[in-house]
Amino acid sequence: MSLAFTIAELTSLTGAKSVEGACLAPITGIAALAEATPGDLSFLGNAKYAEAVAASKAGAILVPVTFEGEPAAGQAFLRVDNPSYALALLCSVLESRLWPRPAPGIHASAIVAASAKVDPAAHVGPLCVIAEGAMVSAGTVLEARCHVGAHASVGSDCWLKPGVTVGDYCILGARCRIQSGAVIGSDGFGYEPVNGEIQRIPQIGNVVLEDDVEVGANSTLDRARFSKTVVGRGTKIDNLVQVAHNVRIGRQCLITAQVGIAGSTTLGDHCVLGGQSGVAGHLTLGDRVKLGAQTGLFEDVPADGFMNGTPAVPFGLERRLVVLSRRLPELFKKVDSLAASLDSAKSQTT
Amino acid sequence: MSLAFTIAELTSLTGAKSVEGACLAPITGIAALAEATPGDLSFLGNAKYAEAVAASKAGAILVPVTFEGEPAAGQAFLRVDNPSYALALLCSVLESRLWPRPAPGIHASAIVAASAKVDPAAHVGPLCVIAEGAMVSAGTVLEARCHVGAHASVGSDCWLKPGVTVGDYCILGARCRIQSGAVIGSDGFGYEPVNGEIQRIPQIGNVVLEDDVEVGANSTLDRARFSKTVVGRGTKIDNLVQVAHNVRIGRQCLITAQVGIAGSTTLGDHCVLGGQSGVAGHLTLGDRVKLGAQTGLFEDVPADGFMNGTPAVPFGLERRLVVLSRRLPELFKKVDSLAASLDSAKSQTT
Amino acid sequence: MSLAFTIAELTSLTGAKSVEGACLAPITGIAALAEATPGDLSFLGNAKYAEAVAASKAGAILVPVTFEGEPAAGQAFLRVDNPSYALALLCSVLESRLWPRPAPGIHASAIVAASAKVDPAAHVGPLCVIAEGAMVSAGTVLEARCHVGAHASVGSDCWLKPGVTVGDYCILGARCRIQSGAVIGSDGFGYEPVNGEIQRIPQIGNVVLEDDVEVGANSTLDRARFSKTVVGRGTKIDNLVQVAHNVRIGRQCLITAQVGIAGSTTLGDHCVLGGQSGVAGHLTLGDRVKLGAQTGLFEDVPADGFMNGTPAVPFGLERRLVVLSRRLPELFKKVDSLAASLDSAKSQTT
Repeated sequence: MSLAFTIAELTSLTGAKSVEGACLAPITGIAALAEATPGDLSFLGNAKYAEAVAASKAGAILVPVTFEGEPAAGQAFLRVDNPSYALALLCSVLESRLWPRPAPGIHASAIVAASAKVDPAAHVGPLCVIAEGAMVSAGTVLEARCHVGAHASVGSDCWLKPGVTVGDYCILGARCRIQSGAVIGSDGFGYEPVNGEIQRIPQIGNVVLEDDVEVGANSTLDRARFSKTVVGRGTKIDNLVQVAHNVRIGRQCLITAQVGIAGSTTLGDHCVLGGQSGVAGHLTLGDRVKLGAQTGLFEDVPADGFMNGTPAVPFGLERRLVVLSRRLPELFKKVDSLAASLDSAKSQTT
Repeated sequence: MSLAFTIAELTSLTGAKSVEGACLAPITGIAALAEATPGDLSFLGNAKYAEAVAASKAGAILVPVTFEGEPAAGQAFLRVDNPSYALALLCSVLESRLWPRPAPGIHASAIVAASAKVDPAAHVGPLCVIAEGAMVSAGTVLEARCHVGAHASVGSDCWLKPGVTVGDYCILGARCRIQSGAVIGSDGFGYEPVNGEIQRIPQIGNVVLEDDVEVGANSTLDRARFSKTVVGRGTKIDNLVQVAHNVRIGRQCLITAQVGIAGSTTLGDHCVLGGQSGVAGHLTLGDRVKLGAQTGLFEDVPADGFMNGTPAVPFGLERRLVVLSRRLPELFKKVDSLAASLDSAKSQTT
Repeated sequence: MSLAFTIAELTSLTGAKSVEGACLAPITGIAALAEATPGDLSFLGNAKYAEAVAASKAGAILVPVTFEGEPAAGQAFLRVDNPSYALALLCSVLESRLWPRPAPGIHASAIVAASAKVDPAAHVGPLCVIAEGAMVSAGTVLEARCHVGAHASVGSDCWLKPGVTVGDYCILGARCRIQSGAVIGSDGFGYEPVNGEIQRIPQIGNVVLEDDVEVGANSTLDRARFSKTVVGRGTKIDNLVQVAHNVRIGRQCLITAQVGIAGSTTLGDHCVLGGQSGVAGHLTLGDRVKLGAQTGLFEDVPADGFMNGTPAVPFGLERRLVVLSRRLPELFKKVDSLAASLDSAKSQTT
C-alpha cells in the first residue's frame, strides 16, 4: 500500500467512538498485532488475543469500546464497537483508493472490432482485444491485455484484471470479477476413438457466468459441447480451478483453489468444495454439499451431504476410517497375539 | 450460438430421411431432451431416453428412422439412421460457421521480427508476437495475443487460441490445436544445492509437439534440460496439466485435466491418465496404461496396466482394498469380540 | 538448439584434458548415451552406465579421465575430470548463447505510463504494459506481453518470460525469474456470508518476492488480505502452484508443480513440497519440512518433519500403514480363520 493516514482520518473512516494516546508517524499499513510496526494500524479482532495488544508495536490499534488497557507511548487506541467490522469498513475505503475505478474510455492501443459494442461508460485498457460482435456493458473495467472474443458479452460493472480471456460467444452477467489469466470458454475436452485415432468432437456451446460470479487467476472454464456451461449467480471460484464442459454450478457456491469438476456434473446452490478436490463427470450434487480438501468424489451426493477422502465417503465415516487405519499396526499385532494365544490354548486342551 | 436454421436446412445438414411435423420458429440452439425449448434442436442418442422425447419441448428432434412416436404440436421429428452421428455432422458444420477460418494475413498490430518467416497462407491475429527466426506455416491460425518465441516453429494448419505462448526453439507439428493460456516451453524445474543455496540448472532443450497434438487451456509443458520434451502424434492434453522437462508422452494418449507428469518419465502410446492423477519422475509406462482419477503413481507400469489409488496399485487390488478398508470398523469389533471370546474360553478351561 | 560446435570448441568450453578420436560432423545437440546421434554430444555422468558408452552413436562423449575404453569410428572422447560438471559448464555457455540478454531499451509497442520508472539498463519487450508509478530496475528483462501493475516494483537483473503478470503494488527483489503466465498478485480468495449471499472481503495487501525467487509457468500467488504474502529469498516455485493470501514461505524452499498452500500458512526455510501436495490454511511448518507428493497436510509440522499421505502422518508411519493396508485381504482371512478355529476349539471343549 502507498497510502498514509492520520489518526484523525482513521477515526473518521472507522467511526471510532474515542481515541486514546497518539502516534507519531502517519499510518501507512495494516498488520496483525504481533507483526505490526509503528507505521501500522492493527486490531483486536478476537478477545483471545487481548494479551498481544500490550506487546504490539503498532502505531494505532482498533480495540473494542470495553477493552481494558492503555496504549503504549507513541501508540493510539481507537475504540470501536466491533474492531473486525471497523477494519472491514476501512479496507473497503482503502481498496477504493488503491484501485480507483479507471475513467471510461478505450485505450488507444486496444483493438476493437468495428462491429463490437463498447458502452461509453466502460473502460477498455491498453492492448485489449474486443472481437467482432462482442459487447462490453456500462461500468465495466477491462484492465490491460484482456480479450473479449467474437460475439461474447460482458455485463455491466464487471472488473476483469489484466490478461483475462473471454472466449467467443461466452456471456458474463453483471458485476463479475475475473482475475488475471483466467480462461472463460476454452474448448471442452471431448474426443472419440475413430479407427485407433483420437478424434475431436466439436465443442460449439458457450460458458455463461451469471451475475456476481468471481473467477480466480488462471482458472479454466470449458465451453459446452453444445448448449452451455453455467456458473450460478454469486458463486466464487478460486485460482487454478478446472470446470469442464457442460458443468452446471449452482448459486452462491465456493469452489476453492485447484478443484476440478469433470464434464456434465451438476452442483446445487451453496456448495463448498475444498482445495484440490475433484468431482467425476455426470454426477449430481444437491444444495449445500461440502467436500473436504483433496476429496475425490465418484458418486452423487444428496443435499447437505459432506463427503471426504478418495474415493469419498460421508465425512463422519471417513474420520472414523482414518483413525482406525492408523491403528492398523496395533490390530495386526493383536491378531497375531490372538492366534498365538489360541494355539497355546489348543495345545493345552489337547 | 448465434445461428438460425430452418427445418429444411437441418434436414439437408443431417441427411434426414424424412421429416414429420413442423416447428414454428427457427432453430437457434441444441439442447438435451429435458432442457430443450421450442427454439432448440434435440436428439434421441440412446434408446433408454425414448420416454423423454414425448416430454421434450424441443422444436425439432433427431430420432431414429424406426422410432415409434409422433411429434407434438409445433414440433418436428427428423428421422435419421443414427441420431448421434447426425448430430456430430451438424455440430461440425455449426463449428465451421461459428468459427470460420480467419483470412490469411498478419494483423497490423502484430509484432513480427524481420527474420521470422510467416507463410502468406497463415493468419496472425492482433497483438501477436513472432520473434526472431520463428516460423509459422501455411494454414495456421494464431488468434490474438499469441507468442511464438525465437526460432520456434509452428507447423501447418495449427490453430492457437488467444493468448498461447510457444517458447523459444519449440516445435509444433501440423494440425496442433492449443487452447488459451497454454505455455509450451517454460523452463524445466531443475536445481541443485550449492553451499546451502539452491542453484538453477540451465534448461536448454525444447518441447516438440508432433502432429495432431492438442493442449488445453493454461497447461504447462516444460522444455527439456537438454534434448527435448516430446508429446507424440495425436495425443490430447486437457486443461491445467503439468508436463515436466524431458517427459516423453507417446501417441494417441489422453491426459485429462490437472494431471502432473514429473521429469524424465516416459509414456507409451494410447495411455489414458485420469483427472488430477500424478506420475513421479523417471518412470516408464507401457502402451495403453490407464490411471484412475487422483492416482499417485510411483513405479513403472507395463503395457495394459490399470493402476489406481495413492500410492497406486493395480485397479482390481485397489477396489478390493477400498472395500475392505471401509469394513475396518467391523473388523476391529470382530477382533475385540474374538479376544473376549478367547479369554472366556480360556477361563472356562482353567 | 540451433548451435553447432567443433570438437575444438567443445574441448575449450568443457576444459577437456585430452581428446581421442574425431567426429565428422559438427555437434548440434546434447543427448543421453542411448539416444544420441552422430550430431550429438553425450556424457558418462554415472559409472553404472559405462557399458552404454560402447553402444552410443554420439559424435562426441564426455568421459572421465580414467575411463577405460576407446571411441568408435567417427566418434570423439573428451576426457574430463567430472563429466557432469563439464556438461553443466557447457550448458551454461549454451544457455547464454541461446538466450542472449536482450539489449536495454523499451520496445516501441510497449505501453509505459508517464509516471513509471524504467531503468535505462532494463529491457522492456514488445506489447508490455508498465502501469502508473511502477518501477523496473537495471539489468531486468521483461520479454513480450509482460504486465507490471500500478506502483509495482521489479528489482534488478530479473527475467520475466513472455506473458507474466505482476499485480499492482507487488514487489519483486533482485534476480527473480518468472515463467510465462505466472500471476503475482491476484486477489486473495476471501469471502464472508452476509444474509445468505457471499460477500467479497477486500484484498488490499500485496505479494513480495525476495531476491533470487523463481516462479513457474501459470502459477498464482495471491495478494494478502492486508499486509503481504511473502516468498523468501532463493525459494523456487514450479508450475501451476497456488499460493494463497497471507502465506509466508521461507528461504531456499522448493515448491514443486501443482502444490497448493492455503491462506495464512507459514513455511520455514529449506522446505521441500512434493508435487500436487496441499497444505491447509493457518498452519506453521518449521525449517526443512518435507512433504511427499500428493500429501494433504492438515496440521503443524515441527522442523525437519517429513510427512506423507492424506491426511498426512510422519513418513515412516505412512510407509508402514501403506504396507499394512495392502495386507488387509490377508488380515480379514486370518481373522475369519481365527474365528472358525475358536468356534471349533470351543465346540471341542464343550
